[in-house]
Amino acid sequence: MNVPTQMQALVQRHDGYANTQTGPMIDDLSPLLTHQTIPVPTPGPGQALIKVHLAAVNPSDVHFIKGEYGQPRIKGIPAGFEAVGEVVAGDTPLVGQRVSFFASASGTWAEYAMTDVSGLVPCRPEFADVDAAGQLVNPLTAIAMFDLVRQSGADSFVLNAAGSQLGKLLIGLGRDAGIKPIAVVRRAAQGDALRALGAAEVIVSHSSDAIGAASDVFKTLKPRVLLDAVGDQFTADLFFLMPSHARWVNYGKLSTEKPALGEMGQLIFQNKVIEGFWLTRWMKQTDPTRIPQAFAEIQERFVTGQWKTDVAGIVPLSKAMADLPQVLGKPDGKAFIDARC
Amino acid sequence: MNVPTQMQALVQRHDGYANTQTGPMIDDLSPLLTHQTIPVPTPGPGQALIKVHLAAVNPSDVHFIKGEYGQPRIKGIPAGFEAVGEVVAGDTPLVGQRVSFFASASGTWAEYAMTDVSGLVPCRPEFADVDAAGQLVNPLTAIAMFDLVRQSGADSFVLNAAGSQLGKLLIGLGRDAGIKPIAVVRRAAQGDALRALGAAEVIVSHSSDAIGAASDVFKTLKPRVLLDAVGDQFTADLFFLMPSHARWVNYGKLSTEKPALGEMGQLIFQNKVIEGFWLTRWMKQTDPTRIPQAFAEIQERFVTGQWKTDVAGIVPLSKAMADLPQVLGKPDGKAFIDARC
Repeated sequence: MNVPTQMQALVQRHDGYANTQTGPMIDDLSPLLTHQTIPVPTPGPGQALIKVHLAAVNPSDVHFIKGEYGQPRIKGIPAGFEAVGEVVAGDTPLVGQRVSFFASASGTWAEYAMTDVSGLVPCRPEFADVDAAGQLVNPLTAIAMFDLVRQSGADSFVLNAAGSQLGKLLIGLGRDAGIKPIAVVRRAAQGDALRALGAAEVIVSHSSDAIGAASDVFKTLKPRVLLDAVGDQFTADLFFLMPSHARWVNYGKLSTEKPALGEMGQLIFQNKVIEGFWLTRWMKQTDPTRIPQAFAEIQERFVTGQWKTDVAGIVPLSKAMADLPQVLGKPDGKAFIDARC
Repeated sequence: MNVPTQMQALVQRHDGYANTQTGPMIDDLSPLLTHQTIPVPTPGPGQALIKVHLAAVNPSDVHFIKGEYGQPRIKGIPAGFEAVGEVVAGDTPLVGQRVSFFASASGTWAEYAMTDVSGLVPCRPEFADVDAAGQLVNPLTAIAMFDLVRQSGADSFVLNAAGSQLGKLLIGLGRDAGIKPIAVVRRAAQGDALRALGAAEVIVSHSSDAIGAASDVFKTLKPRVLLDAVGDQFTADLFFLMPSHARWVNYGKLSTEKPALGEMGQLIFQNKVIEGFWLTRWMKQTDPTRIPQAFAEIQERFVTGQWKTDVAGIVPLSKAMADLPQVLGKPDGKAFIDARC
C-alpha cells in the first residue's frame, strides 16, 4: 500500500495535565484540539504504522484531551487511544492485516496511527469494525474487572453507570456466568433494557427510596464487589450498605463530587477496601497468558452476539471537530470517528 | 490459691451496638458501667480463670463499652479487653504462672477474668506489670502494622496520633529498623519528645502550613504507608499528597469527621488503596508462627528498654468509676486499673 506523506488528524493543543476535574462531558473541542494536516509518522524499531478505519471515542479519551487522565498530553500529537485499521508498515508479519490496537506513539483520531508491534491484536474476519474499534478499552476492562467479581466468591456484584457500553458488557458477563448483576442507573427508564440484558436488580439512584431499595437488595444478594465509574456520594453510601469484605473498585470519575466516608469503622471491622482499577496497570501486572485469552473471548462474544456494540453515531474525521460533541452528548451508545472520510 | 465465690467488677449495662460514633473520649462511666459484686466465673473446657493484677484501658475499650466497636456488648458481663494476672484455675499447665491475656469470656476490669487457654501469654519475670498488662492490643498492633510498612519497601512511613502509646511504639520500631517515621501530631509541643524517640519528621496538623510541610517531606522521603488512628479530613488530604502506591491503613477513629476523597483518580492511576486494620482479624489470618515470635519480640523490647510504657495513672478497681475518666483525659500516657485494690 502506498502511504502518503501527509494526513488529516485531530491534534492536541496542550501539553501535560490541566489540574482540573470536570468529568467526561464536552461541548466544544476547539480549545483542546485542532483539525490539521501533519506528516504521517514513520515507525521506528518495534513500531507499526496503521491506516485507521474506525476509531473509538471513550470517556478516557475525553478525560485525556482535557488533561485529566493518568498520563500527560503531548502538544502536536493526534488524540485517540484505540481503533481498528490495517497495518501498512513496520517490523511485523501483520503488515496487510486488520488489527485492533491501542496507540502508544501517535493517536487514532487521524488517518494513520502508530504503536508498538506488541500491542497489535489481529481481528477475525467476522468481527465487525464497530466492535473491533472498541475491543481494547471497554471489553478488556470488563473482562479484567469481572475477574475481581469471580474472585470475590459472591453470587452477585454491583455496577453503576450500568447503562454505559462498559456497563452492558459487564451485565452480559454476569448473566452468562450466573453471577447476578445489580445495576445502578440514574433514570428509571433505563431499567427495562438492562433487565432484558440480564440485570437481576436495578437501583435508580435518583429515586427517593434508592438507599432503602439498595439495602434490601444487598441483604438478599450479598454482593462483595462494587464496580464504580462515577465516584459520587451515592456510590460511597452504597458501599457502606454492602456486607463485610466488600471492595469498592473505582475505575472512572463521571461525577465531580468528593464522596465522604461515612462509616470508616467498616474498613476496620468489616474488612472493606477502597481501590482503583486501571487497565494500563492491569495489562502490566496480570498473568501474560490472560491477555490473548481475553481477546479471543472478546471476539467470540461479539461474533456470537453475546455482546453487541450500541452505536450512538459515526462521525467522519473531516467533520469531527464540529459534530463529535453532539454525538457524545447522546444518553446511550458509543461514538466513533471514521478516519477514511 | 483459694478462689472466692464473689468478686468486684465493672459490669456492662447494655447489650449490642449503640449506632453512635462519638470517639474514644468519656466524661462519665455511669451510663455504661456499674461497679458491682458478681459471682466469680467458672471456667469451662478449654478456659482459664485469671486473678487480675493490672488491666489496661485502651481506646478500643472505650469504643466497646460505648457500643461503637466491632463486636457487640453483653449486658451483665465485666468490661475490659486485656490485663496481666495469675492463672488460678483451668485446664492448662500455666496454673500458678503470670500471664498477659485478652479476655474472651469475662472482662479484665474485675478481680477475676476468664479466657480461652490458647490466648494465655506467659510473661518473663523481668517483664514489668505495666508493660505486661498492655502487651497485646498496642504492642501486637504495632508489630503487625509495621509488617505492612516493611512490605511497602519504602524507607519511611507516616503515622498520626503519633504521641499515643501505640504511636510511640511504632516510632521505636521505625527507628530500630532504619525506616524513617514521619509523625503527625496535633500540638507542636509534642515534637521534641517524638524526635528524641526517633521520629525523622514531625508534621503539626493544626499549623497553618501543615499541608505544605507534609508535601515537602513526602517528596523527599516517599512514604508508602499511612497508619491512621484518626480518620479525619487532614488524614485524607495527607494520603492524596503521598506518592504512587500509597496505602491508607485506618485502625482507629479518634475524629468524628467524615473525610471526603478529594482525588479519587489517584486510586485509579496511582494504585492507591484505602483499607482498615483490625488486630482480631490479623490474628486469625496471619501465619500462626508470627504470633509467638511477636510476643517474644515484645517482651525483649520492653525488658531491654527499646520500648517503654508511659503511665498516665493507675486507678484502683474500687475507685475506677469515679477516677478513670480524669486519667483518660490526660493528653499523654496510658491508664490502668489495679484489680487488687
